[in-house]
Amino acid sequence: MGVERERKFLVPGDEWRAEVVSVHRIRQGFLSTDLRRVVRVRVVDDNAGYLTVKGARHGISRAEYEYPVPVADAVEMLERLCLPGRIDKLRHVCGSEHYELIVDEFGGDHQGLVLAEVEYHGESTEAALPGWLGTEVTGDDRYSNAALAARPGTDEGSTP
Amino acid sequence: MGVERERKFLVPGDEWRAEVVSVHRIRQGFLSTDLRRVVRVRVVDDNAGYLTVKGARHGISRAEYEYPVPVADAVEMLERLCLPGRIDKLRHVCGSEHYELIVDEFGGDHQGLVLAEVEYHGESTEAALPGWLGTEVTGDDRYSNAALAARPGTDEGSTP
Repeated sequence: MGVERERKFLVPGDEWRAEVVSVHRIRQGFLSTDLRRVVRVRVVDDNAGYLTVKGARHGISRAEYEYPVPVADAVEMLERLCLPGRIDKLRHVCGSEHYELIVDEFGGDHQGLVLAEVEYHGESTEAALPGWLGTEVTGDDRYSNAALAARPGTDEGSTP
Repeated sequence: MGVERERKFLVPGDEWRAEVVSVHRIRQGFLSTDLRRVVRVRVVDDNAGYLTVKGARHGISRAEYEYPVPVADAVEMLERLCLPGRIDKLRHVCGSEHYELIVDEFGGDHQGLVLAEVEYHGESTEAALPGWLGTEVTGDDRYSNAALAARPGTDEGSTP
């Protein structure tokens, strides 16, 4: 099992764009949006597929089991089996030595939503974060991708 | 994607035991019991783990995606993340050149239930079946393992 330890923030402006080191297109859907047993199908850049299981969140930690699967399988599951409501986003990876910082710019039904995730590798969660991060929404289940997928067409702004 | 093509039968007597060539203990639970997108976690003989996704059934066919996962992951998902209600059964593999014939003898909450599954590899589904098979329950969703797991404690007999 892996344990995902992350904090999540809304991102109001465009200042973050200067720190982007790579961009990937992520399409994902869900076989279960039950937050105690989320099952996600993900296709990255149309050339990699993943099947991921996540357990209940405890604070900023969450059990996570991720397996690479053939991309053709992932595309089929995404298009034929997943629940209605999908996520289509550009994932911008920003550089930092203390944590992994990604900025997800949502398209489709969630156009306009920009969310940053800070994922910690070590024990410390105290490293200074960039000033351009907006309101912290860690633990706010409305901003889980599973919940977003289940609410297509919701008119979120990046600053609620 | 694989396509599972199988017929399912109740097994009333003990005649089948003479044809068994191997036995495995299967423990499994479900992350989704929605029959359009079943997600199953399976542990075989405590030394192999699988994560399996199944789509809706069309006749005797069903889309199936199965991936081996580390057995420690499978045990954790089974014990911590799966929905209440699990399946614990002995899977008896019987020999045949035309199809794969298995007899599942359920324990735990479903003690007394014995189900045979005939899985076809080629196109034909006409090969003669053994006379000891009872009532056919192909397509009867009450006998899907996902539905059984969701109904723990139900008092099924092998001949309803």
